[in-house]
Amino acid sequence: MSTELISQDTIVALATSPGVNGAIAVIRLSGSKAIEITNGIFKGKDLSMQPSHTIHFGTVRDGEEVIDEVLVSLFVGPNSYTKEDVVEISTHNSNYIIERLIGLLIKQGARAARAGEFTLRAFLNGGLDLSQAEAVADLIASNSAASHQIAMQQMRGGFSNQLRQLREDLVHFASLIELELDFSEEDVEFANRNQLRTLVTNIDQIVRKLIASFEQGNVLKNGVPVVIAGKPNVGKSTLLNALLNEERAIVSDIAGTTRDTIEDEINIHGITFRFIDTAGIRDTADVIEAKGVERTREKMKQARLIIYLFDPTQDRMDAVRQQITDVEDLRIPFVTLINKSDLLTEAQRLEYTDLKPVYISAKEQIGIEELKDELLAQVNLAHINTDDVMVTNIRHVEALQKTADALHRVLNGIDNPVTSDFLAMDIRQALHHLGEITGTVTTDDLLENIFSKFCIGK
Amino acid sequence: MSTELISQDTIVALATSPGVNGAIAVIRLSGSKAIEITNGIFKGKDLSMQPSHTIHFGTVRDGEEVIDEVLVSLFVGPNSYTKEDVVEISTHNSNYIIERLIGLLIKQGARAARAGEFTLRAFLNGGLDLSQAEAVADLIASNSAASHQIAMQQMRGGFSNQLRQLREDLVHFASLIELELDFSEEDVEFANRNQLRTLVTNIDQIVRKLIASFEQGNVLKNGVPVVIAGKPNVGKSTLLNALLNEERAIVSDIAGTTRDTIEDEINIHGITFRFIDTAGIRDTADVIEAKGVERTREKMKQARLIIYLFDPTQDRMDAVRQQITDVEDLRIPFVTLINKSDLLTEAQRLEYTDLKPVYISAKEQIGIEELKDELLAQVNLAHINTDDVMVTNIRHVEALQKTADALHRVLNGIDNPVTSDFLAMDIRQALHHLGEITGTVTTDDLLENIFSKFCIGK
Repeated sequence: MSTELISQDTIVALATSPGVNGAIAVIRLSGSKAIEITNGIFKGKDLSMQPSHTIHFGTVRDGEEVIDEVLVSLFVGPNSYTKEDVVEISTHNSNYIIERLIGLLIKQGARAARAGEFTLRAFLNGGLDLSQAEAVADLIASNSAASHQIAMQQMRGGFSNQLRQLREDLVHFASLIELELDFSEEDVEFANRNQLRTLVTNIDQIVRKLIASFEQGNVLKNGVPVVIAGKPNVGKSTLLNALLNEERAIVSDIAGTTRDTIEDEINIHGITFRFIDTAGIRDTADVIEAKGVERTREKMKQARLIIYLFDPTQDRMDAVRQQITDVEDLRIPFVTLINKSDLLTEAQRLEYTDLKPVYISAKEQIGIEELKDELLAQVNLAHINTDDVMVTNIRHVEALQKTADALHRVLNGIDNPVTSDFLAMDIRQALHHLGEITGTVTTDDLLENIFSKFCIGK
Repeated sequence: MSTELISQDTIVALATSPGVNGAIAVIRLSGSKAIEITNGIFKGKDLSMQPSHTIHFGTVRDGEEVIDEVLVSLFVGPNSYTKEDVVEISTHNSNYIIERLIGLLIKQGARAARAGEFTLRAFLNGGLDLSQAEAVADLIASNSAASHQIAMQQMRGGFSNQLRQLREDLVHFASLIELELDFSEEDVEFANRNQLRTLVTNIDQIVRKLIASFEQGNVLKNGVPVVIAGKPNVGKSTLLNALLNEERAIVSDIAGTTRDTIEDEINIHGITFRFIDTAGIRDTADVIEAKGVERTREKMKQARLIIYLFDPTQDRMDAVRQQITDVEDLRIPFVTLINKSDLLTEAQRLEYTDLKPVYISAKEQIGIEELKDELLAQVNLAHINTDDVMVTNIRHVEALQKTADALHRVLNGIDNPVTSDFLAMDIRQALHHLGEITGTVTTDDLLENIFSKFCIGK
């Protein structure tokens, strides 16, 4: 590990969101000199004499000048997030104060923290394993019940615990086989090949189940990609608004935060549905028809769900039926929606029965609940079991895939007997890739890559 | 006071800035049930058994579902900001978690706080006087050393202390005069008129000094309004950038916060210079000349400082000299700047000596330090004494003005003897207006007006 990553200097950063709408801001320090450095600018009590997990009121000063009245929270290592001494200074939320204070702390000997450096230290000091550390970033980014639950479960170690157990069992066999290598001339088998086969088969099944969970986990984490097909002006925007209005969080006095990002994302009973923009498709109306259709189909293939929306008061039915047949060919779950259904007579309704549509009126908010139930049923994600371990991270699924490959070679090696050293090598590779997930095995590049995606202050 | 303002229910709000770039967020509760309500969703220790100013790790839950791992800080009243029980919950900075948590706390019996309600309670419960509470908002908004120092001084009570002393002295005389009213038929004078005159004259002088400090205080708080005069393309933008680059805070890794708001504001040695947009003036080039000049003059009259910038390689000198004469007529401090001075020969420079200009090159960053010194010298604000009490709030200056009027009537009443009841009335009015500043005298409307301008969570 490079000296840069394991440097034990004291780091400082703003831990709360920058912005002008808050009352307070929190500046965080971590490192062996965190308390001493804070003490250097704090006037109140002597912080070095105070117990962990206590809060102290006082002023922070630059010489005689009072910069702010603050509350200082002390966490004496190893009872802290990073396992080092941690100080959190709660200030008035003024950019001027924050900049002055961080400047002062740096002058006293702290260093500006890099992105994710607090969590990196938590990992390096054994407070979190790597997959837990990654879950911290996922947790902060989570914006639906499902993505939140998965991240929380991972942060609390559910995924890691399962892997740790698998790894321990395998290590046991690995050591027996390594022992055989020492006695290679005597042709002994300390590791029972049948037991090994059973174990590796077991592990392989679990690993494959984890790999298989990725598709579902990824959809839960990033949202179900949905394409709304149909001609322009059939009511796509009205439909999105109808769905959105229903689910708009009541406690959102914390406004101005999520609004920008949710745009075309809709949360239905905890599952995010992410609507893929098909605006580009509509713009191609004037190019050759075949090309337009091709593009639409490409977009649709990215979807996990297609909604086909039409307006029976405007659309020509033969065209609608042709398009529905086209969509069905893609073999992606889809829902046929008839908008403005409140304008249809019962007799007119009967004409569409074979399409098994959901009858709605986006404008009149009719049929919206039925639509939601149908969407959830189609993606088959309604019943998330928070106890189920689910993989949502592409890095993890890649490591699991490599583990599965190595395990496959181990099984081959048992069934078509190879020498112990080949078996040992494949088992070591499986262990290596499992270890990459939890961080038992790491490289600087890997850590840089993971933690640089964090925000500063985390 | 209305029941709404003095309601003692427990309030909750996000106390940190909303946004996606932070690691942690802090949710704050205040009220008699703050600890009980938090206890209802917290799993860790029994919070009601813990001492004040301690921090507790645990999980917050909705039934069995873990919403987050949090740190809970306890402040047992009256040892808190609001003087009530206060709880601060430090969570991962996820909008989803924040919304869920605030929703849960409301379900447990808390109420969403209104803007400024925490600080309002601090005032109502005697933790801050009104001018101190107002300073909290100023402190958060402050973005220069000068505005920060003034707000900090006011928040720490400098202004209030001075007023309290004046008020106490006056109350003493008021009570003596009220006593005279009880004995009005006996024509006695308990209050020595000469001593009263001396006191009122003293108070009047201090009040007038405070009123006079408003202009300076206001400029320090809101920035020095500056107009840059001169023809288009003489280098205004380059000049602004040259000034800006020099002063850009080094620790601004907290980027994306101030940048939007500072635009045409420049901080020179702690003083904000606010450049008034004269773009509108330039656009009038095609209307009748006289009208254009008139508008320019109107804009210039709003300035406290005018910079006259010209480019000797382009501008016609007779026009420049005429415009400088026009500017001088306004009797506003001004600085003549010669841009591109690096392109002038020494002989050419001598031609301008009578204008007493500052020679710069905005592009080459020449003369920028000299310019700053000159700007500071012109506004005469370089030496701010933080011990000087300064009025920056229009509400305060209005109350002080009314106080001064009442004091003037008192002095008149002493010199042209009136009966004690008239004197008493005027003294009471002076006391009333002084009391308005610190909140000794308040109305609901006044409080609503002040605190509704705060952000939620403060």
